Amino acid sequence: VAEARPALGEFELIRRFFDRRSDSAARRTDVLLGIGDDAALLAVPPQMQLVAAVDNLVEGRHFPAGTDPRSIGHRALAVNLSDMAAMGAVPAWATLALTLPAVQESWLESFAAGFMQLAAEHDVALVGGNTTRGALNVCVQIMGLVPHGSALRREGGRAGDLLVVTGTLGDAAAGLAQRLNPRPGGADLDALLRRFDYPQPRVQFGIAARGIASAAMDLSDGLSGDLPKLAAASGLSARVEVSALPLSAALRASQSKAQARALALSGGEDYELLLCVAPARYTQLQRAAAQLNLTLTHIGELRAGSGVEWLEAGAPIAAPAPGYDHFG
Amino acid sequence: VAEARPALGEFELIRRFFDRRSDSAARRTDVLLGIGDDAALLAVPPQMQLVAAVDNLVEGRHFPAGTDPRSIGHRALAVNLSDMAAMGAVPAWATLALTLPAVQESWLESFAAGFMQLAAEHDVALVGGNTTRGALNVCVQIMGLVPHGSALRREGGRAGDLLVVTGTLGDAAAGLAQRLNPRPGGADLDALLRRFDYPQPRVQFGIAARGIASAAMDLSDGLSGDLPKLAAASGLSARVEVSALPLSAALRASQSKAQARALALSGGEDYELLLCVAPARYTQLQRAAAQLNLTLTHIGELRAGSGVEWLEAGAPIAAPAPGYDHFG
Repeated sequence: VAEARPALGEFELIRRFFDRRSDSAARRTDVLLGIGDDAALLAVPPQMQLVAAVDNLVEGRHFPAGTDPRSIGHRALAVNLSDMAAMGAVPAWATLALTLPAVQESWLESFAAGFMQLAAEHDVALVGGNTTRGALNVCVQIMGLVPHGSALRREGGRAGDLLVVTGTLGDAAAGLAQRLNPRPGGADLDALLRRFDYPQPRVQFGIAARGIASAAMDLSDGLSGDLPKLAAASGLSARVEVSALPLSAALRASQSKAQARALALSGGEDYELLLCVAPARYTQLQRAAAQLNLTLTHIGELRAGSGVEWLEAGAPIAAPAPGYDHFG
Repeated sequence: VAEARPALGEFELIRRFFDRRSDSAARRTDVLLGIGDDAALLAVPPQMQLVAAVDNLVEGRHFPAGTDPRSIGHRALAVNLSDMAAMGAVPAWATLALTLPAVQESWLESFAAGFMQLAAEHDVALVGGNTTRGALNVCVQIMGLVPHGSALRREGGRAGDLLVVTGTLGDAAAGLAQRLNPRPGGADLDALLRRFDYPQPRVQFGIAARGIASAAMDLSDGLSGDLPKLAAASGLSARVEVSALPLSAALRASQSKAQARALALSGGEDYELLLCVAPARYTQLQRAAAQLNLTLTHIGELRAGSGVEWLEAGAPIAAPAPGYDHFG
């Protein structure tokens, strides 16, 4: 288990590939002590609550072997940023525990570039890190801030609320299918692949939705897997009109109608937001989305009861396959 | 990559084995929202700073295959609590990303028992979790609190400070050696094995040392690997009298004198604290340790310059092998 130290130690590794790029850590005055001590020391403003989440990516589970390390670095942070988005939180700090089969400088260089570029876009400082040798596993915890009492929770949905989703659904799952079983295709399939490789967490919209939406969650496991959790947390039933699901032009052009719908219903990894909003406030939420050039689509409602009812043109249909589960 | 959901999904897994045991999460009024939403929501008192660290345990690197899962659960949290101890922070909340080759309920039961018992002892609430299938990898992030400006930092050491360590050194490395190459032995070897399997982070002493010690770090990689980091962070050199290193009766009884000393110098995983303290304050620090039934041993000094000088009975000796590095 124990081995002597190599020329390039754990500490140096982290420093070389992450610390020097951590412009956000240097810029954020709330990072009192970053990477290099036993722990980071962080200042939380008195009017803010702390929001914390963890998510990890495992090779062969969350991405195929041989995936571009830049995408792995991006996604490892993106899936955590998406949790901040779902709470309406402003992401602030992240820690990274990176387990790698071997030290490959080019791999680390590319991974760090993907991670740190997204971090810089969201002004997130990497404040703690740890590297270990082993099967590829990327564990990120994110910490964010939200004003007292304003976090979006899954349990906030009310009967009569509209169910709305950001962006389009099913693209990432179609992209992953293309990665696993490539077929000839042009710009459409490339666009879907990018949706899988470089998901864009809806952080700004989550923040904008505070005080307007009554509940929110992010769609990581697919609508059919995630919506029942939101409905259950709110103690309500949900009704979804599947013909209303937003499908991208790329998805429609590259898949049969049935495939596109199945991907939109059950495909995971889109990292769009699912929100509940009172009908009277929907216009306000749409305006917030429009300001961010984000489409918002009304797909159903919350009602008294439990479970999810799936409709097509108003008529009940069989429940779609449940969404992706990481312990499947 | 994506698979359909099994009978016992990710969410249920976490709930069953961790949430129901999380007495601390129920007791802590600062956990506004625990496991079950996209992220946890936590209240940080206005006079406190946030302290955050991450560490993971990988099978075959940090523990041998076949290790009792109760020990793995304990150690995964203990190594993070030790980082809080080194900062003088009060641990508060933890997240856990658990990657497992298969869902074995008995394994999870035992792992959770080890993790949650130590969490309860330190009043730490598990506020976020994630499970994935893959090579065994336990990633824990811990968050703690420290009053403004009172954290112990590695960089705080001053020329003339005494170097002191808590407890005894080398026991965990001897225990690991016994695990890997068992030899007949009685209570002594069992005691050393327990030091490896169930390290006791010095959290209470780290808190007590605030305002007395000038700097601190925890000994995870062995004194010979860790002390140079502390000296460098403080911009000073360190001088250590190796005959002063505290050796347990079990270590002395079960090893040759040379072996015992080598383990105390270079063995890792003890999770004792290394502190710097002005000579005038050493008595006060000893009193704090005595109140916790913890021994404290003066092993050297900080001086102007750089690097570490190792002495035996006052005469320079060759530098010991560097400590354990997780990327060795």
